[in-house]
Amino acid sequence: MSKVSRIELTPVAFADPPLLNVVGVHEPFALRTIVQVHTDNGNVGLGETYADDAHLARLRAVADVLPGLDVFDVNGLRRLVIDVLAKDGSAQVGGMLNLQDPADVVLSPFEVALLDIQGKELGRPVADLLGGAVRESVPFSAYLFYKWAAHPGGAEDSWGAALDPDGIVDQARSMVDHYGFTAIKLKGGVFEPAAEVEAVRALAAAFPEHKLRIDPNCAWTPLTSVRVAKELTGVIEYLEDPTPGIAGMAEVAAQTEIPLATNMCVIAFAHLKPSVLADAVQVVLSDHHYWGGLRRSQLLAGICDTFGMGLSMHSNSHLGISLAAMTQLAAATPNLTYACDTHYPWKTEDLIKPGVLEFVDGSVRVPTTPGLGVELDLDALGRLHEQYLSSGIRKRDDTTYMRTIQPDFTPNTARW
Amino acid sequence: MSKVSRIELTPVAFADPPLLNVVGVHEPFALRTIVQVHTDNGNVGLGETYADDAHLARLRAVADVLPGLDVFDVNGLRRLVIDVLAKDGSAQVGGMLNLQDPADVVLSPFEVALLDIQGKELGRPVADLLGGAVRESVPFSAYLFYKWAAHPGGAEDSWGAALDPDGIVDQARSMVDHYGFTAIKLKGGVFEPAAEVEAVRALAAAFPEHKLRIDPNCAWTPLTSVRVAKELTGVIEYLEDPTPGIAGMAEVAAQTEIPLATNMCVIAFAHLKPSVLADAVQVVLSDHHYWGGLRRSQLLAGICDTFGMGLSMHSNSHLGISLAAMTQLAAATPNLTYACDTHYPWKTEDLIKPGVLEFVDGSVRVPTTPGLGVELDLDALGRLHEQYLSSGIRKRDDTTYMRTIQPDFTPNTARW
Ligand SMILES: [Mg+2]
Ligand SMILES: [Mg+2]
Repeated sequence: MSKVSRIELTPVAFADPPLLNVVGVHEPFALRTIVQVHTDNGNVGLGETYADDAHLARLRAVADVLPGLDVFDVNGLRRLVIDVLAKDGSAQVGGMLNLQDPADVVLSPFEVALLDIQGKELGRPVADLLGGAVRESVPFSAYLFYKWAAHPGGAEDSWGAALDPDGIVDQARSMVDHYGFTAIKLKGGVFEPAAEVEAVRALAAAFPEHKLRIDPNCAWTPLTSVRVAKELTGVIEYLEDPTPGIAGMAEVAAQTEIPLATNMCVIAFAHLKPSVLADAVQVVLSDHHYWGGLRRSQLLAGICDTFGMGLSMHSNSHLGISLAAMTQLAAATPNLTYACDTHYPWKTEDLIKPGVLEFVDGSVRVPTTPGLGVELDLDALGRLHEQYLSSGIRKRDDTTYMRTIQPDFTPNTARW
Repeated sequence: MSKVSRIELTPVAFADPPLLNVVGVHEPFALRTIVQVHTDNGNVGLGETYADDAHLARLRAVADVLPGLDVFDVNGLRRLVIDVLAKDGSAQVGGMLNLQDPADVVLSPFEVALLDIQGKELGRPVADLLGGAVRESVPFSAYLFYKWAAHPGGAEDSWGAALDPDGIVDQARSMVDHYGFTAIKLKGGVFEPAAEVEAVRALAAAFPEHKLRIDPNCAWTPLTSVRVAKELTGVIEYLEDPTPGIAGMAEVAAQTEIPLATNMCVIAFAHLKPSVLADAVQVVLSDHHYWGGLRRSQLLAGICDTFGMGLSMHSNSHLGISLAAMTQLAAATPNLTYACDTHYPWKTEDLIKPGVLEFVDGSVRVPTTPGLGVELDLDALGRLHEQYLSSGIRKRDDTTYMRTIQPDFTPNTARW
């Protein structure tokens, strides 16, 4: 009957390339909070989440009340989170998304850490606590970005620039060669739709056997979305968030055969009923970081299965603890049949001990050691925490950073 | 990494009073199958399910392929069940319900047994494997039946007859006095609606503080259902299955403030989407015996929570292993806020060692010992198995039994 004894929350920053999107460009450093949950019998469980100041304050408030909690009491954890946040407002996650209820996003890293501890106490991987792995390795997708060769004033990164179809195909080639991915996603919404359609067609020509997707993060009107969907029918496996809102997505969905996917209009349990009633989306991108952890992500998976929606997985910039959690979850989720998104190849620094999570043929082998299967490298944690302190970044803000470079930049919501 | 080594399936029969319902009357014995899953390291997990011949044959077919299964691999168990039953037909459960897909009803007792083993290996109650108990004891309802004093040719049972409002109130008094229930359900569909409304009114007068329900098992037309709902508004907490089918229930639901509950038109995951789209039911009665075990019952709970439906729990005639599983599940299900149904007070025989599951103030205290928290009494198991053999009953059939007494009896589907 081990219980939580204390919590360590460590904000960290790690180098991030200048990846372009609809709200601007990634800053030189991405932030994460590393959660260590200690137990009275000497175990430690790990979690990883966002690190914006407001989120960090909520994590701290919850951490204060957790000592004494039984490590199997996930229901009790959720109740404590709801109680602590009772009078708190909405939560910003991943730079673009606003959640009316912050409970699930605050719950997530603590829940993952408790499952990590449970697995360690039981001598079982987390996938076993989630019903057992249905696959030995989890396929991920190559996540392509339009990008500059370097942050202004910085050195060129190893990927170089990608600002047209040739650049995107080169980036894909490099990523596929290194990691073996069999699915490719292009983050769009950066250039006019015709240019991005051209990039997708170039990818299809260069990678005829690969599954393709494009995600313009709601940069298009419903009319444009329908037109692009017609142009890409037979070319892409799903079209991700072409246009904002459940009503807009439903309007597009009614006029295309291509499944519409989302991690923008359905990002909380409260959005599922309106989406199902409107038949707005055909694929939901789960993300345990804001769907309330691994058990609640399994609930989302079961809902998708029950209501005839497909299931894929979303990613923000993340480190190895999150990759381990994503892999354990995906392993135990039978209807997660699309390759998961990950930003993992874009980072050059991590804080887990290396050698566990490797991409082979585009897939990560599911760790079978107890818990999540990864260990913290405390030296690296300290280094990335120092980097957090010195970076001065306290909140992800791609738009403000972009405006230091292009002063007239305006985030794009259905502008095209 | 313990694995399943062998399975014992033992059909049993236990004495059952002559309880009346819409399809006839309970036979002198009710059937159950007791499932014992043995592991290679000497553990045993328990499950309990139906025992109709066709079901027993399916259980045997699945039992044949389970040796070697890892006891944490619930996903693997489900895949095996689906594979074994791939070419099999529909399943009859609980005497009235027909499931198009038998997978979940066959999966259930094996899943419960695996969770029992997991809990024993971990030294934790099953509720902990389901997210942790949110309540220390689980409220059940008094489940009243119209009944005869005795089976034809048999001795009068301790309950006596209940064939009118006075008889029902006397039965309720006896059950509430013995068990402390604070909710009361009347199984209806036996007499004309006016007579059953009168019985509910008599209960309301005699038990003004108790929550009341009536379940006529689809004996009424939508028109009658609406009329009864109007008469019982403010008197009952929900109206259970007044009329058949999702369309019929939706028609009634649109015309009453009383929540409609069901364990007849929504009994499988495939029924949830049409029900939600039609807004047919406001409360789903879960039942782990046909919803695929405890984890999938939690999925149902999460779906009810997500789509704004209430959650209660259904029961057929059952023994102590099922009561333990129902209690562990209910304990770990936050939105199970209605008192659960149980036939437990009607039985006079059991096969678990006594003293664990007691009703105090209408509630059963959740066992906190490892696993389900109950142990099999092997002598009692043998006795009830002998009773199964000698009873000659191989399939629940209330209608045929009723016709031996009332040759012109016809099951009632929306006749009134
Ligand atoms: Mg997206
Ligand atoms: Mg019922």
